[in-house]
Amino acid sequence: SGEEIIVVPGDGIGTEVVPAARRMLEHVGEFSFVEADAGDAVKAETGEALPEETYDLVAAADATLFGAAGETAADVILPLREAVDSFVNVRPARAYPGVDAVRPETDVVFLRENTEGVYSGHEDRLSDDLSTLTRVITTSASERLAEFACEFVADRDADGFHVVHKANVMRETDGRFREAVLRVAEERGVDADEVLMDAFATHVCLDPTRFDTVVCPNLAGDVLSDLAAGLVGGLGLLPSANIGPERGLFEPVHGTAPDIAGEGVANPAAAILSAAMLLEFLGHEEDGADVRAAVEDVLSDGPRTPDLGGDAGTDEVTDAVLDRL
Amino acid sequence: SGEEIIVVPGDGIGTEVVPAARRMLEHVGEFSFVEADAGDAVKAETGEALPEETYDLVAAADATLFGAAGETAADVILPLREAVDSFVNVRPARAYPGVDAVRPETDVVFLRENTEGVYSGHEDRLSDDLSTLTRVITTSASERLAEFACEFVADRDADGFHVVHKANVMRETDGRFREAVLRVAEERGVDADEVLMDAFATHVCLDPTRFDTVVCPNLAGDVLSDLAAGLVGGLGLLPSANIGPERGLFEPVHGTAPDIAGEGVANPAAAILSAAMLLEFLGHEEDGADVRAAVEDVLSDGPRTPDLGGDAGTDEVTDAVLDRL
Ligand SMILES: CC(C)[C@H](C(=O)O)[C@@H](O)C(=O)O
Ligand SMILES: CC(C)[C@H](C(=O)O)[C@@H](O)C(=O)O
Repeated sequence: SGEEIIVVPGDGIGTEVVPAARRMLEHVGEFSFVEADAGDAVKAETGEALPEETYDLVAAADATLFGAAGETAADVILPLREAVDSFVNVRPARAYPGVDAVRPETDVVFLRENTEGVYSGHEDRLSDDLSTLTRVITTSASERLAEFACEFVADRDADGFHVVHKANVMRETDGRFREAVLRVAEERGVDADEVLMDAFATHVCLDPTRFDTVVCPNLAGDVLSDLAAGLVGGLGLLPSANIGPERGLFEPVHGTAPDIAGEGVANPAAAILSAAMLLEFLGHEEDGADVRAAVEDVLSDGPRTPDLGGDAGTDEVTDAVLDRL
Repeated sequence: SGEEIIVVPGDGIGTEVVPAARRMLEHVGEFSFVEADAGDAVKAETGEALPEETYDLVAAADATLFGAAGETAADVILPLREAVDSFVNVRPARAYPGVDAVRPETDVVFLRENTEGVYSGHEDRLSDDLSTLTRVITTSASERLAEFACEFVADRDADGFHVVHKANVMRETDGRFREAVLRVAEERGVDADEVLMDAFATHVCLDPTRFDTVVCPNLAGDVLSDLAAGLVGGLGLLPSANIGPERGLFEPVHGTAPDIAGEGVANPAAAILSAAMLLEFLGHEEDGADVRAAVEDVLSDGPRTPDLGGDAGTDEVTDAVLDRL
């Protein structure tokens, strides 16, 4: 019955927040769920952090909800992003009223290139002293990202986007990225400003309202979105979407939180917000917006988990979100 | 008479703040100065952003004070760092009492690897669609940096340092960096903790007091120190030192500030603090400490330039610093 969603809780609080997000999905729609394993726990049992069955399920499904993995995070998440042929990682970083933030006015969405850069996987040990990594940038991947960005800012009613790069040093590779992104924006009639990666790091701290949508190479998107997470008060509230041409993989930005895992007090907000992005990806835009609004309500005046200074558990917060739907 | 210092004001406010720092140096010691050109202005005249005479002077001198360069910044500063064989860029980022800061408790020193990483300069255009950059990491450069870091934390009476890397993705190259740095620390009996580059970006925003001395690959040091600059209220106050085995190159972290250049209101603090690092490098440790204290005094209750909300000019602030020496 309904669309099929693969659910991969993973390790640590992944096994607590993914079930919470699944409850939300069961509440708003008719989906069928398939659970699959990945991460440290399954590796300890089977020797494989990412079992082939899991990879195959994710590669064939419309949408997957992933939780978190421990030590094996890179072995799990990088292949899963490939499994859905994800070319962009969408990472909204916004502060919520009532939640402590270094920069409460932050509301920035990072569109991170998700296939290349230093994530190419080509490394060589050339001698006892020297190793190299081949950083790859293609015009085709940069254009695909830019086309997505143009549609994204149109949907968001934003004025345009910023493209982040370090083309003053990486002239050929980031030069190619910069040029492709700016060219697509111009062809589509979308305003695009450029900002150097280091300057962005300074300016987003000084005044995050200068930025709305930020298009980045892979590692820049990783680091600068985590920086924005710091400005909004931590990773606990940030969802993300790995978007491919046909499939998507949705995951909270936070990790396994070993210090609180197993206690039933993990904040389910990031996982539920990730599942809201999944709903939108599947075409259930209104449901997605409703869920986001419900989470926002609960964050501002509902029960809170300890990370936000409250004493509620994961289930109580999830109940409160469902109550408002 | 005295040690020779090469002075390269460059463009924009470089031509205002470097003379201010030179006045301070003339005030505290017996140096002889040689002025040299670099940057956009000399390029417009001669076609060369970095004239050979300038390169040769810097490569032969004990110490150089550089201001800023405009569009040509990378063409000037990267070769000059090579000219002094600089293996580490020392970037203290601290907030000052009385100066607005996002995180007033910030006091972190970045030790940035200054020769390799994505700054290797090896890029190739392999097809119409694809370009590559060869990121280089050597054990020897990583060890040299780590040895410097061990001495640095001992001088600073710090407990140890953090090493930043992204070895979960760049397993071979950052793996090599990480391993070399941690091994040297262990051999020297210095505490070293590791932190992933993205996690550092989050944590330094949430609580900068977790970090004291941070050892980074080249680009990580560039971006994360600029992030810390954002936390302390901007680039205006940050000095830096490019240290080589025999020579040093000292520069404010800020740029040419075209919006205020020529008005005589540029804040000379970063250039004067850079010159204080130069004094220490030349063995005049007490003078360096005195200058730092004088700048701090002026920042907390002396005249201020407009970037700090005052209406004093560069000369008046410089006079106030000299008065307190
Ligand atoms: C676990 C790691 C490989 C991953 C990345 O670098 O992309 C993580 O930091 C993230 O951002 O999802
Ligand atoms: C101008 C540029 C090449 C330089 C760098 O990337 O090192 C600058 O950002 C800096 O940090 O001094």
